[in-house]
Amino acid sequence: MKLLEERIRRDGVVKEGNILKVDSFLNHQMDTALFAELGKEWKRLFEDKPINKILTIEASGIGIACIAAQQFGVPVVFAKKTQTLNIDGEVYTSKIHSFTHSKDYDVIVSKKFLGKEDHVLIIDDFLANGCALEGLMNMVMDSGAVLEGIGIAVEKGFQKGGRLIRQKGVRLESLAIIESMDAKTGEIVFRS
Amino acid sequence: MKLLEERIRRDGVVKEGNILKVDSFLNHQMDTALFAELGKEWKRLFEDKPINKILTIEASGIGIACIAAQQFGVPVVFAKKTQTLNIDGEVYTSKIHSFTHSKDYDVIVSKKFLGKEDHVLIIDDFLANGCALEGLMNMVMDSGAVLEGIGIAVEKGFQKGGRLIRQKGVRLESLAIIESMDAKTGEIVFRS
Repeated sequence: MKLLEERIRRDGVVKEGNILKVDSFLNHQMDTALFAELGKEWKRLFEDKPINKILTIEASGIGIACIAAQQFGVPVVFAKKTQTLNIDGEVYTSKIHSFTHSKDYDVIVSKKFLGKEDHVLIIDDFLANGCALEGLMNMVMDSGAVLEGIGIAVEKGFQKGGRLIRQKGVRLESLAIIESMDAKTGEIVFRS
Repeated sequence: MKLLEERIRRDGVVKEGNILKVDSFLNHQMDTALFAELGKEWKRLFEDKPINKILTIEASGIGIACIAAQQFGVPVVFAKKTQTLNIDGEVYTSKIHSFTHSKDYDVIVSKKFLGKEDHVLIIDDFLANGCALEGLMNMVMDSGAVLEGIGIAVEKGFQKGGRLIRQKGVRLESLAIIESMDAKTGEIVFRS
């Protein structure tokens, strides 16, 4: 998606260690007008799918998912990273490894909000190793819901997550896929 | 706001220990059509204010804040609950006590995204003791930005947070204020 690629080129910052900082518009400060355009694009791409729920994971997926959900006219459910005292009853749970924070954590979704009647689109801001997505996909499988697809804003195409998910036959629509990036020159090459 | 009060009466569940569960539409599963109406109401209430940024805190504030931000045409910044490796440079920081989780945690906002040029509206889903809001307000003060007001979806009016904030002269607009609730009967009384 040209709009997103141009924004990444303009405001993204490439750092050593394959880090792309897009915190000025995507995952710390959030440009909701841009998010609306991402939402419209996912709506166009998944128009043939009977999606009735969007699933994401806290924290940085929530804003994008909520604004995308307005295009689909469906509710959002977000997976929570720790069990809170305020969630009662049964939950789906999955363990996720965070490379950013070098630790494992549990995520949960209440069984009240995901079940076999659901046709789910997963939305998240970033895809690199795919650990978070794998956790969300496992919970969709556990629930008996149909996973209709996955919408990602920025995929690091040089890491394994996207390939592993596409190999499973899951429809994955990343709106910008980074083929390579160079911390010295700041250059970013997108997959065409 | 009648729409929100009716929704709380219909789908909210009162539990022992002054717990109000609104996780079916507000803070686990999220009804973005409802959020759009909340956003319109805050826009109406704060129309006289030169708001150029909305500040919230992860996780459950983010969805409401992003959809409200569309009404104001401004970006959202969310305070992060732990320092991540991906935030560089300097940050504002504040310690917040969570009664829900019985612990203290640090929140941070990058100094890049909050400064003395900003006129800030704080948005969050819930107000009870006001600890999270106090942390956000401290960061706004530290940044030199102007705090134009606070928009809350559901305030527990029988807890101290709202009173303490109003005593400071801060304009606080809670769209539903619960005066009392009864876990045995399920009855909820709103402040009129």
